[in-house]
Amino acid sequence: METTAPRASRYEEIAADECWRLLRTAPIGRLVWTGEHGLSVATMNFAVEDDEILLQTLPYGAVARECRDRAVAFQADHVDEDTRTGWSVLVRGRATFDLDGGTPPDAVDVWPEGSRVLRLLLTPRLVTGRRLVPATVGRPRT
Amino acid sequence: METTAPRASRYEEIAADECWRLLRTAPIGRLVWTGEHGLSVATMNFAVEDDEILLQTLPYGAVARECRDRAVAFQADHVDEDTRTGWSVLVRGRATFDLDGGTPPDAVDVWPEGSRVLRLLLTPRLVTGRRLVPATVGRPRT
Repeated sequence: METTAPRASRYEEIAADECWRLLRTAPIGRLVWTGEHGLSVATMNFAVEDDEILLQTLPYGAVARECRDRAVAFQADHVDEDTRTGWSVLVRGRATFDLDGGTPPDAVDVWPEGSRVLRLLLTPRLVTGRRLVPATVGRPRT
Repeated sequence: METTAPRASRYEEIAADECWRLLRTAPIGRLVWTGEHGLSVATMNFAVEDDEILLQTLPYGAVARECRDRAVAFQADHVDEDTRTGWSVLVRGRATFDLDGGTPPDAVDVWPEGSRVLRLLLTPRLVTGRRLVPATVGRPRT
């Protein structure tokens, strides 16, 4: 219990272009919306296409029913338990459905089976991110 | 590219007691709420105390300002990229602040530095979870 004291970490903001780069490294993220059961979260595969988030979902599932032309958010993060560091990125915007086939059909590597053929596009309004870094390294005096 | 075709996975519902067990294995989760910037997500350390979610936050941060006595959700998940499997748990409920010290002061192992002394308690209304398992193993004929 007393071998090594846990180290504290501190937050740093992440610039938007770095947010997009980090998003491209993540296999999954979390779609967030307000649905019939309240605040809702679905862990989903995704792709980044021209600074938009592309998802594929079931045409008759909860995401299809509850997200169309609605405000949604998409979150991805990565943490390292050993170093107590990590990053998180949050994209807020509006969800539309690509019913015209304007997005590439195989852009998203979808893990779950089923006909997840409905393509949802999240157009960003606000992209934010923060990184948890070791508190004792390169700490600015502000 | 054509060495091994990606395997599909399928979803299974997770019972409530198993949701709580899984939550206890996760070092971090994501608090979700609706704030001044819209749908908001914060990756946070947490503890499970008597089937409630306990968080610690800055007394003057966004969570403190925007979550008190409000509907919130807390999500945790785990994915394995190699096997394309994983689980996710979502706890929906109401956030209250423990201003009387009724919760244990050191229950949450908080990674970020700063005086995160405000204890937020999420009392569940609805606990749901699902597991992504290999599609070809033990698939029920339904």
